[in-house]
Amino acid sequence: MKLEVQWIVGFIDGVGEFDVSVSENQIKLQFIVKQHEEDVQILHALKAHFSCGVVRNSDNNKMSYNVKEIEHLSKIIVPFFEKHLLKTKKRIDFEKFRDIIIKMQRGDHLTPEGIEEIRAIKEEMNRGKLR
Amino acid sequence: MKLEVQWIVGFIDGVGEFDVSVSENQIKLQFIVKQHEEDVQILHALKAHFSCGVVRNSDNNKMSYNVKEIEHLSKIIVPFFEKHLLKTKKRIDFEKFRDIIIKMQRGDHLTPEGIEEIRAIKEEMNRGKLR
Repeated sequence: MKLEVQWIVGFIDGVGEFDVSVSENQIKLQFIVKQHEEDVQILHALKAHFSCGVVRNSDNNKMSYNVKEIEHLSKIIVPFFEKHLLKTKKRIDFEKFRDIIIKMQRGDHLTPEGIEEIRAIKEEMNRGKLR
Repeated sequence: MKLEVQWIVGFIDGVGEFDVSVSENQIKLQFIVKQHEEDVQILHALKAHFSCGVVRNSDNNKMSYNVKEIEHLSKIIVPFFEKHLLKTKKRIDFEKFRDIIIKMQRGDHLTPEGIEEIRAIKEEMNRGKLR
């Protein structure tokens, strides 16, 4: 199955997530798309389109497509959504997600102050949960 | 805001719903898209694209775009998704939704047997709920 670029943008506006978790001194980033297991072929098509990430089991008969490697996020996922703009408020989440990646690439997350800055950005994300 | 056709298909694959309710002797159909109220402009853009339906309040800080008129469903929504195919299993729901519309236009829903047939089709829809 071949996915068109604007179809991907619309689908991600609908069900994609830019997720950040900040613990004591570790930051985890992921771009994630969940679907009912019946639609796993869509997740494989996304993986083929982006040539990165993994498809795996998620909760409740769901499967997910995840990209966690900062290298793949910064070189593939971020440029895609910079070129093809999201139309919902999810774009704001994407921009914050990108800002955190930039900070991490500078090594900001290696200091307590940097972690706090990243935590503050994360707090502003996904306010309209499930939007 | 102008929406591209493939963006719409992807967005509906993500968050659109083809909903049928069958009560004693009444059948209600709706094409519905829900979003957090912050993204109400997307719903208005869909309404503008299809030139039908209404945007209204839904549950939990959400708004919805609804098309319920059978005339609008059969002349606008159905032809759109026949021309621009959904990529997820939601396409199967769409096809059953369309089959029910065709039956209703023939008047099948005016007999108890017709209602039962429609109920049987509806039972097969939305099996992978939230897909």
